[in-house]
Amino acid sequence: MFRRTILVSTCKEGEILNLTPQVTALLRESGVTEGIVSLFVQHSTAALSTIEYEPGVLADLTRALAILAPDAAEYAHNTKWGDGNGRSHVKAALVGPSLVIPVAKGRLCCGTWQQIVLLELDVNAGRDRTVICTIMGDEIT
Amino acid sequence: MFRRTILVSTCKEGEILNLTPQVTALLRESGVTEGIVSLFVQHSTAALSTIEYEPGVLADLTRALAILAPDAAEYAHNTKWGDGNGRSHVKAALVGPSLVIPVAKGRLCCGTWQQIVLLELDVNAGRDRTVICTIMGDEIT
Amino acid sequence: MFRRTILVSTCKEGEILNLTPQVTALLRESGVTEGIVSLFVQHSTAALSTIEYEPGVLADLTRALAILAPDAAEYAHNTKWGDGNGRSHVKAALVGPSLVIPVAKGRLCCGTWQQIVLLELDVNAGRDRTVICTIMGDEIT
Repeated sequence: MFRRTILVSTCKEGEILNLTPQVTALLRESGVTEGIVSLFVQHSTAALSTIEYEPGVLADLTRALAILAPDAAEYAHNTKWGDGNGRSHVKAALVGPSLVIPVAKGRLCCGTWQQIVLLELDVNAGRDRTVICTIMGDEIT
Repeated sequence: MFRRTILVSTCKEGEILNLTPQVTALLRESGVTEGIVSLFVQHSTAALSTIEYEPGVLADLTRALAILAPDAAEYAHNTKWGDGNGRSHVKAALVGPSLVIPVAKGRLCCGTWQQIVLLELDVNAGRDRTVICTIMGDEIT
Repeated sequence: MFRRTILVSTCKEGEILNLTPQVTALLRESGVTEGIVSLFVQHSTAALSTIEYEPGVLADLTRALAILAPDAAEYAHNTKWGDGNGRSHVKAALVGPSLVIPVAKGRLCCGTWQQIVLLELDVNAGRDRTVICTIMGDEIT
């Protein structure tokens, strides 16, 4: 059981960060060669997924999320609390906060074009985001 | 390896239940201080996610799910089986049945505003719902 | 820690394969009676979820995904790379690549109508798909 915290800073709504390098580095540090990596984003206006980390796809994903939770819609959350991020909460709940990725021979079992990403969904810019990385498994040498 | 069943009753479609108290109580019972909690809802018309448990946000989420699977659309499932919950199946498959949450120092690593929720998506009211809670990890005292 | 690879072939976009028989067979092979099964699809244009495996529901889910990522929309990914599967990437990132299912008394804890499925979302037909199945837990006899 190895656990570390990945801390990242985001600049703006819709930003999508590639966390694969950080997770890969933690996996190496853990020494685990066969097991799983559990990732969890500790926020209600950010989410985790995997995607091909290519600007076109990222823009397409952002546009799709705006179909679900349009900028111009009225949000009960905004009406009540006035913080303007109703759409952020909705998107985050639909994409989800957790991801489990297998490890084999000391490597993340992601596909060739499949990167681990954090979606910054909050309308309020300049956030620090925490992702908990838990690695469980065996060290086979 | 600690496993318990969380049983809840729901009253109506769109109801969103906060499971955080139940999961927290089971974590305490397990004695695990460092590890993960795996949650799985054992139904095809309910789902699990995390969200700020505030009535405004919950209403906003419900509305977003109705964009994906509108009440008034024709569902092949309904046409064939006549049970009227085609939209419920679609929403549940998209949100997903499973969630993995890390545990540190005996506590769930959820964010301040981040609660664990069960989404009752079935149109047929008055359901008993089962969530399997599996806790894995170490007891460090 | 037991890990196997599930290999499947798909024929066309929108195909949804029931993986429950393969996962059940691997669970038996593993000998694990109490634990979890972690599934991960190693591709950025396929996804995993659970659903009632009934043709009507599967068609309804496919239609809902097309609301999020319509066939006729312009995708930045397509414009840049010309491979036409922008919508596939978007759908896959939203549904997600991973799933964790509990095991009790040697059985998958899925609901009666709840099957494990792989969604083939790529527009390019005839793909081989890899799902990594990791089983962790105890063998209690």
